[in-house]
Amino acid sequence: MNKEYNRLMKRCINLAKKSEGRVSPNPLVGAVIFDDEYNIIAEGRHEKYGENHAERNAILNCKTDLKGKSLIVNLEPCSHYGKTPPCADLIIEKGIKKVVIGMVDPNPIVRGKGIEKLRNAGIEVIVGVMEKECKELNEIFIKNQNEKMPFVTIKTAVTMDGKIALANGESKWITDEYSRKEVQKLRNKYDAILTGSRTVIKDNPSMTCRMRNGRNPIRIVADTNLRTLKESNIYNDDGTGVIILVGENTEEEKIKKFAKNVKIIKVPLKNGHVDLLNGLKQLYDKEGINSILVEAGGKLNKSLMEENLADRLIMFMAPKIMGDSSAISFVEGFKREKVSDCNKLELTSTKVLKKDILLNYRFTK
Amino acid sequence: MNKEYNRLMKRCINLAKKSEGRVSPNPLVGAVIFDDEYNIIAEGRHEKYGENHAERNAILNCKTDLKGKSLIVNLEPCSHYGKTPPCADLIIEKGIKKVVIGMVDPNPIVRGKGIEKLRNAGIEVIVGVMEKECKELNEIFIKNQNEKMPFVTIKTAVTMDGKIALANGESKWITDEYSRKEVQKLRNKYDAILTGSRTVIKDNPSMTCRMRNGRNPIRIVADTNLRTLKESNIYNDDGTGVIILVGENTEEEKIKKFAKNVKIIKVPLKNGHVDLLNGLKQLYDKEGINSILVEAGGKLNKSLMEENLADRLIMFMAPKIMGDSSAISFVEGFKREKVSDCNKLELTSTKVLKKDILLNYRFTK
Repeated sequence: MNKEYNRLMKRCINLAKKSEGRVSPNPLVGAVIFDDEYNIIAEGRHEKYGENHAERNAILNCKTDLKGKSLIVNLEPCSHYGKTPPCADLIIEKGIKKVVIGMVDPNPIVRGKGIEKLRNAGIEVIVGVMEKECKELNEIFIKNQNEKMPFVTIKTAVTMDGKIALANGESKWITDEYSRKEVQKLRNKYDAILTGSRTVIKDNPSMTCRMRNGRNPIRIVADTNLRTLKESNIYNDDGTGVIILVGENTEEEKIKKFAKNVKIIKVPLKNGHVDLLNGLKQLYDKEGINSILVEAGGKLNKSLMEENLADRLIMFMAPKIMGDSSAISFVEGFKREKVSDCNKLELTSTKVLKKDILLNYRFTK
Repeated sequence: MNKEYNRLMKRCINLAKKSEGRVSPNPLVGAVIFDDEYNIIAEGRHEKYGENHAERNAILNCKTDLKGKSLIVNLEPCSHYGKTPPCADLIIEKGIKKVVIGMVDPNPIVRGKGIEKLRNAGIEVIVGVMEKECKELNEIFIKNQNEKMPFVTIKTAVTMDGKIALANGESKWITDEYSRKEVQKLRNKYDAILTGSRTVIKDNPSMTCRMRNGRNPIRIVADTNLRTLKESNIYNDDGTGVIILVGENTEEEKIKKFAKNVKIIKVPLKNGHVDLLNGLKQLYDKEGINSILVEAGGKLNKSLMEENLADRLIMFMAPKIMGDSSAISFVEGFKREKVSDCNKLELTSTKVLKKDILLNYRFTK
């Protein structure tokens, strides 16, 4: 039975993943309706922010009578009126007899109330099937709910000795074309991309999403002294908007030069740089940015790690060795006294690409 | 049919692997006898240098009549009288009707002659089943036969940014206990371990194989000026022997101080250090060392790479970030002008260990 639930839950997770980058600030949810022999009768997912929840779509997609059927879903069905009416009520109304749930909704408005409602209506509820996988699927939503901060992923492309560029800044190309295409897919999944003024000045990147059917993330530049040029590619108006985090004392004269599509957010200083904790908090609270992909140099990466602001590290590692201590590393500026002072992570997945390898880590705090 | 051959060849490879570290300078070989329905009837492997070949053992292990049966083996059966009589003759004599072979024997004494002999006797011979895997299995033997040089594998234990120690040399511990046990298994497979004088002086390692039923490899120290102390742990007499590669002008007085179990090999200098090409050649020709595991610092690793002497790199990577440019990298001393100047490798396998990941690369020349 457990095996059948796992199989069905995997299907829910795969359905949910199809909406990556489309549902923020909502969670990713997939739902499946099945019979007593664990055959799938109907499926649904939350496709886009503001639209139907997964359970509702699965129920709408079901062509047969729902009475006596079961429903499996990776996240607890909601019990409140949001953009749509409560899914728990609809499940009860349709006569579904059993609901299998991956994880409790961390949203304080729900958090167990959906389960309670179902149980009070006499529905059998099983909670915690593939909970670990369900939590990983919605790690962005969970962090948002629990910490009211954006989920931060550092992306880097390195040699086997952690170098991202030569001493002169040249980085074309550490990883191969195939890996660079994978980065486009990542950009499609995050609300925003964060980079530093140094990267903008040196590489003048666009940081758009160049995949088919992709959508551009908001681009954010941490630029304490507003050194970047307003003509930089990253400030091109593509309708998505760009944000610059500047030091709070930055002169209005400098700010006025930037085009309308560029929003300037003033941030207090910390050690001579924009206070990243404050900056991220403002991005979450004022701009509704729930997830950020960091594509920056070793110094900004270090600052984020130092402040415990990074949640994940996605490393594309090319089968190359630089072996040159003057080259630039993906994290720069720590002074370690002991080996145990190193930042620690947990390897959560690996994927061998064409030539490079993709290593996915979670920071452990 | 191809699928059946692949399955049987995998079995041959697995049998052969059981003898790793035991057959040098011979190749690793496993053989399986099967019937027309591809059922395994008997198995054998070359267990130890000087003993029976795999084909002979498989035939000896067969309890039924061999007439009309087939044999599969990862390496071409030999056609010459070595320590044992030719396997090809035995196969013909027993009335085996078909022989499936992974790869042609690179040994110039055989190289196709075994296959020819079998075919001339009317046996059906198929060559090249899982050839890539068979070649990888015997990469040491192939290099030995083709280049008359030892196969060299650099082993390293690094953080995610390629650091093997703090600036002060402290390296306890980058990788975890589980990974360090895996290193013991590696030591069991190679004829010898090579390290540098710096590592001996700094860490005073024993570099023995501390696994159950393990056997110690020969230990080799590259020590141009014979700076290491004769009391160093690595020179302990365990019956296996130790070799020091010294500069050719090293004074006899210094050499005499070392115990009997320590063999000193004089090597011409190159850029102020022992010429590694010459040193490895001497180790192969005079000492019969066919495979070397390098456990050294960034400078010796760099010298081996610079001279194109390294065949493989085995990297244990801990989920840690050093982020300190004063820390020591696993390869040190290159000056790169272009990203394309990096040493290039090919990732051949990955294995997620307890916390660390094991990445296995082949240098591409």
